[in-house]
Amino acid sequence: MHSTRETVYTHDELDALLAPRSIAILGASNRAGSFGERTLRNLRARFDGPCYLINPQYTALGEDKCYPDVSALPEVPDCVVIAVPREKVRDLVAQCVAAKVPGVLIFASGYAETDLPERLEDQHALAALVGGTRTRLVGPNCIGFANYAKNVCLSFSEFPACTPGPGAIGIASQSGALAMAIAQGACAGTPVSHALACGNMVDVDVADYVTYLAGEPECKAIVCILEGHERPDRMAQAAGAARAAGKPLIVHKLGRTAKGHHAAWRHTASEAGSYEDWQALFERSGAILVEQFDRVMEVASFFAKAPTAKGRGAAILSTSGGACLIAAETAGAPGVDLPQAVDPAHARVLAEAIPAFGYPLNPYDTTAQVISDPGSFAACAGALMADDAYDTVVMPQIQAYDAATPRTATLDALAGRFGKIACNVWLTQWMGGPGYAEAAASPHVALFRSMDACFWTLARWQERQRRLDSEAELKNAGD
Amino acid sequence: MHSTRETVYTHDELDALLAPRSIAILGASNRAGSFGERTLRNLRARFDGPCYLINPQYTALGEDKCYPDVSALPEVPDCVVIAVPREKVRDLVAQCVAAKVPGVLIFASGYAETDLPERLEDQHALAALVGGTRTRLVGPNCIGFANYAKNVCLSFSEFPACTPGPGAIGIASQSGALAMAIAQGACAGTPVSHALACGNMVDVDVADYVTYLAGEPECKAIVCILEGHERPDRMAQAAGAARAAGKPLIVHKLGRTAKGHHAAWRHTASEAGSYEDWQALFERSGAILVEQFDRVMEVASFFAKAPTAKGRGAAILSTSGGACLIAAETAGAPGVDLPQAVDPAHARVLAEAIPAFGYPLNPYDTTAQVISDPGSFAACAGALMADDAYDTVVMPQIQAYDAATPRTATLDALAGRFGKIACNVWLTQWMGGPGYAEAAASPHVALFRSMDACFWTLARWQERQRRLDSEAELKNAGD
Repeated sequence: MHSTRETVYTHDELDALLAPRSIAILGASNRAGSFGERTLRNLRARFDGPCYLINPQYTALGEDKCYPDVSALPEVPDCVVIAVPREKVRDLVAQCVAAKVPGVLIFASGYAETDLPERLEDQHALAALVGGTRTRLVGPNCIGFANYAKNVCLSFSEFPACTPGPGAIGIASQSGALAMAIAQGACAGTPVSHALACGNMVDVDVADYVTYLAGEPECKAIVCILEGHERPDRMAQAAGAARAAGKPLIVHKLGRTAKGHHAAWRHTASEAGSYEDWQALFERSGAILVEQFDRVMEVASFFAKAPTAKGRGAAILSTSGGACLIAAETAGAPGVDLPQAVDPAHARVLAEAIPAFGYPLNPYDTTAQVISDPGSFAACAGALMADDAYDTVVMPQIQAYDAATPRTATLDALAGRFGKIACNVWLTQWMGGPGYAEAAASPHVALFRSMDACFWTLARWQERQRRLDSEAELKNAGD
Repeated sequence: MHSTRETVYTHDELDALLAPRSIAILGASNRAGSFGERTLRNLRARFDGPCYLINPQYTALGEDKCYPDVSALPEVPDCVVIAVPREKVRDLVAQCVAAKVPGVLIFASGYAETDLPERLEDQHALAALVGGTRTRLVGPNCIGFANYAKNVCLSFSEFPACTPGPGAIGIASQSGALAMAIAQGACAGTPVSHALACGNMVDVDVADYVTYLAGEPECKAIVCILEGHERPDRMAQAAGAARAAGKPLIVHKLGRTAKGHHAAWRHTASEAGSYEDWQALFERSGAILVEQFDRVMEVASFFAKAPTAKGRGAAILSTSGGACLIAAETAGAPGVDLPQAVDPAHARVLAEAIPAFGYPLNPYDTTAQVISDPGSFAACAGALMADDAYDTVVMPQIQAYDAATPRTATLDALAGRFGKIACNVWLTQWMGGPGYAEAAASPHVALFRSMDACFWTLARWQERQRRLDSEAELKNAGD
């Protein structure tokens, strides 16, 4: 079904496609709601390079010149978006290949995912057209992609507005909807650098996307939403590229069960493969498999922001004894240590700042007095961040209110100063309330919506570092 | 430590305390940020009954008369809030008891939770003062409570603004912070009727609160956040009261582990008890134990909205094949069936409304075409809600945008019409984005932030109904 080439495309082979300096829309239109109209609107919201409109029915669309076909353009565009119905797609792809267009994107659905033999033929024909040429093809059955680092958004669907801040995640997904679901986290603060969907993958596939993201400096951790792949070895190559670039790869694999297997086939015409085989492959590659979709973004965002783990424990700092309790008992299952501060000077600061009805040991319960005395929170957070017992400070957010937001800023500044990371666990059920987006956007604070997800991730972080360290040791010993 | 009486207080015994028609604040003040000032401000934001200010230092505060003590008031208030430092609390409680005040609330901390023997004595003294009298006491070490059904909010902390809509949850919690964390869900749409915190529980405790909520018509499901209780039999009585009232009881028990056990002691001076014992107790009582704190509110809100389960399956209706996949493979683990529609007329509607590149069987993938043709979504949802194969329709929300919100309204209206419930699984990571609060507030739509939580809850729903049905059968057989 998918392309069967041996190796993934390199970053450079995909750069014209995914970071085009000039773009043409085939099937350009100003009919409101049409794929052509929506694509142009989404593109122009960000992109300021040349954007050519192609539609043989018009000579102009509004004030823009409209060309009859690709060969009539004043230059060969880096990327051509084919926003026309399926029936017309094949000929247009042939024209793009003839014109040596480096990148082509096809939106149209109705190929292999329908189970109709003639549609499968259609899809094979597309693969045959670009195979062995310099034209790279994304789709069909694809909503497109956003490269926020280059202000390019090629989709009929409205991708979230986003500027890749520090600690941005890049998303590579077969499913466009699921790429979008994660990318929309940007609207609530999470930095996102790329959201790349590949649909039916007749040429460029999700492994190529991961490889591309490994080479993109704005992307600090890679999310891969995988349904299936006929060439697991190419996925292993992609995971290797991520590792070589020092970028954590967070994988959510759909189709774990027989039911899921069948649905994956219907969706992007993917053979899901045995989940155990995929698990083993990603484990060997050092990737982080996340089984709950709702946890993927926050795990990835943590890894995009996190420094090197040093094998130390976590401090819990809370204004609530109840939250301390939840944190303390959640830490144990994935095996995260909650040691006491090692430096007596730090322990003294904590003992002085925390009232008698609080708790001056880990988990540190400052009580709600920090609301009236913000300095005491800063003193505690400073002592914990400075202490050698800790790689991170976990702060449960039990209430969302404007005046609580500076505590996140305090943690962010301290974590940055000491080369650590803080975790804000958003226990308040006011999702998106005051301080939520600020925490999600902070370069040195990771936002989690559950204590389980936070400590699970901290355990993976330490585990990943131990693995990298022991591999480095082996390598040094071999040198 | 806690009160050792045999039986829980009845709803009527607590009504003056928790639904007071007149209130006095002991330690009233206009010093910004003081407990007295904040309490008055929070109370006046909602309450329009008589509110007396007591502080021997003043004769007036602004335009309000200020009384020297409780005995000087023109009437015995239903509830007195003691907003003064610990040292002065004992004498004031004695005055309230002497004045036959039905309800007293103490904010001050620094009692048994400190581990100091003299503070434990202080706490015992409070218990002794009210024991056997008609004065019911909440606290100490307590942030207070909000009874939204009666527009009463007695707290120095700002409880969320909330009007209890249809399908509201009531919260009974030892921890004030955790009560607040859940109650803040109201700011993002979830209907909440009461948020009751009890702190150190020298008299009125969390079991009494649950019993009270069982008798409150605005509360449709009860959340209980439990650290520990020396009288588990009283918790069993409370669970029995909830069951007799036909109200689902959702329990989150802190202190599951040895670490948690210790922290619970430090927090509200509670013996946590063995988790297994508590598990067995709640299982016998038909309560629903939720281990993840972040899941408590959404489980409770589902049960507050859900009609009687009929042992039928779930239909999945999505615009995304990827989301169908996630749903299909998540349903299996907790054992939720995904049958096909039984009525051929419904199956025909679905086959006609879903395009060839979608999937006209459960999980139903309408594809994104419903974006341009909203009627096709309504047709599919209508056929599924009407079909006898289903108790519920699950709709993954993969993108938040204004134009998607009407789909939730369509599901809500249909679920109401057919006496069913719909589930909106908020897969988009835009927490609090367009449509989030609307879904949370809908009377016949339950909002979940993860597919796991949704199907876990659906399985508990069917299980609870089977149990109720078989108990009813046994009872009928015995009659």
